[in-house]
Amino acid sequence: METRFARDSAVIGAGDGRYDASLDDGWMREPGRLANGGYLLAVAARAMAAAADDRDPVSVTMHFLAPAEPGPARIDTEVLRHGRRHSTVAARFQQGGREIARVLGAFGALSHNPPVQFRDRTPPDWPNPDACVTWRGAFDDAGVTPPPIADRYDMRVPPGIGMWPLPAEGPDWSSGGYFRWADGDPADIFDVLAAADRIPSSVFNVPDIGAVWAPTIELTVEIFARPVAGHLVVRCSPRTVTDRYFEEDGELWDSAGALVAVSRQIALLGTKS
Amino acid sequence: METRFARDSAVIGAGDGRYDASLDDGWMREPGRLANGGYLLAVAARAMAAAADDRDPVSVTMHFLAPAEPGPARIDTEVLRHGRRHSTVAARFQQGGREIARVLGAFGALSHNPPVQFRDRTPPDWPNPDACVTWRGAFDDAGVTPPPIADRYDMRVPPGIGMWPLPAEGPDWSSGGYFRWADGDPADIFDVLAAADRIPSSVFNVPDIGAVWAPTIELTVEIFARPVAGHLVVRCSPRTVTDRYFEEDGELWDSAGALVAVSRQIALLGTKS
Repeated sequence: METRFARDSAVIGAGDGRYDASLDDGWMREPGRLANGGYLLAVAARAMAAAADDRDPVSVTMHFLAPAEPGPARIDTEVLRHGRRHSTVAARFQQGGREIARVLGAFGALSHNPPVQFRDRTPPDWPNPDACVTWRGAFDDAGVTPPPIADRYDMRVPPGIGMWPLPAEGPDWSSGGYFRWADGDPADIFDVLAAADRIPSSVFNVPDIGAVWAPTIELTVEIFARPVAGHLVVRCSPRTVTDRYFEEDGELWDSAGALVAVSRQIALLGTKS
Repeated sequence: METRFARDSAVIGAGDGRYDASLDDGWMREPGRLANGGYLLAVAARAMAAAADDRDPVSVTMHFLAPAEPGPARIDTEVLRHGRRHSTVAARFQQGGREIARVLGAFGALSHNPPVQFRDRTPPDWPNPDACVTWRGAFDDAGVTPPPIADRYDMRVPPGIGMWPLPAEGPDWSSGGYFRWADGDPADIFDVLAAADRIPSSVFNVPDIGAVWAPTIELTVEIFARPVAGHLVVRCSPRTVTDRYFEEDGELWDSAGALVAVSRQIALLGTKS
């Protein structure tokens, strides 16, 4: 089944490692501009996975170079290694002759709910989705215009958890909640990449910081499992905030309780917008 | 002052973004072969930082493609962006015409002990170095030949902490301890990168796993501070181990208690060697 997200993030092979994409205006952070980082990561990873004989993304790192906007884009892939167990692929993501991101990734074989030999992580102890508030509704309540991407998915935020414009009550300064596509589509592995950088930064939740200018420099997602049908549980937490940079860690769980991915990003810490 | 590590990891600009290095046989995991991953990361980052007008490494990701050995190597850098606050640089690390690693990094400005606005990490609560055992001595005690790199540094391991061949007593399955150069040289920021992948994998400490074949696929280090003089505190912990892959997280603190860097790697989980 082709989902809406699969269509919106599709790539078409043009030969010699080149893939063409059309960035959809439904995945912008502002009307007509500033493509969401997770969306760009998913588009790039689709091209890179295709170049790696459709292996699954296991680790993808993106460095953001310039903002992207709706319209044509191209991804030039280079397969650096194609081994028995995994492939390594580099990619340049360009739009209008300008490089908007450079990407590096490893592609291997993943399954649903793989055996876990050890795990020093636990899923969030949150009330079920019915006891949560909808993120989309929070914009109306706050009198704030939602970004276009807020209409694409059904995000349920647990009481007290921050997700701008919803304030965090603390002491958990995470952002997150239960994520589903608004139209009921199931999540696939590229949606997991997208979800790792789709929600407002958790640094906004930290007292005395708030909603600052926070452009991502580098985002890395390591993926352990294909998600089963149902919601994804997304939790992103601030870890270290200095005077110049901050680090945010994320975990993504599926509805069967499998850890599907972890993420980390480092971003510039700007002044309040 | 030029330290031994600075000499051993030095690069010489050859024009057009190319840097030449000579991989030293003191930094191998086995005599004459298998260069340590942290050493390769430091060599690559020196070339990339030089290409970025000597800015400091803030985030560096390396994907490992093939083993490296002592002798000449070259790093071809490409500056993708040179902005006001940071630069983004890609690099190919080659030896004998074969690519051994691909690297992507961001370079900015770091200071000693920067102001911390928020931190959800705490340094290990370990006894001081004098109450620790020496890692080098553990090889003699275990009757195991140490790798060449074990002679290059003075590593003190807290009682009960695992660091192969020292067994972990648990329930903390971390590897780590206090790190200094054996010849008393101070650590610089490239040593921090090296230290992020210098010690035996913490996955070896996990019960029922042990010392397996565990080749790193991708290693990312985010750096927050230049280290002050004195030891580095290095702690690497297993987080998720499935049937195919494992994830290890690291933290590096300086002797003044500043978090200098965090690291994460994803590796293949092989069978016992």
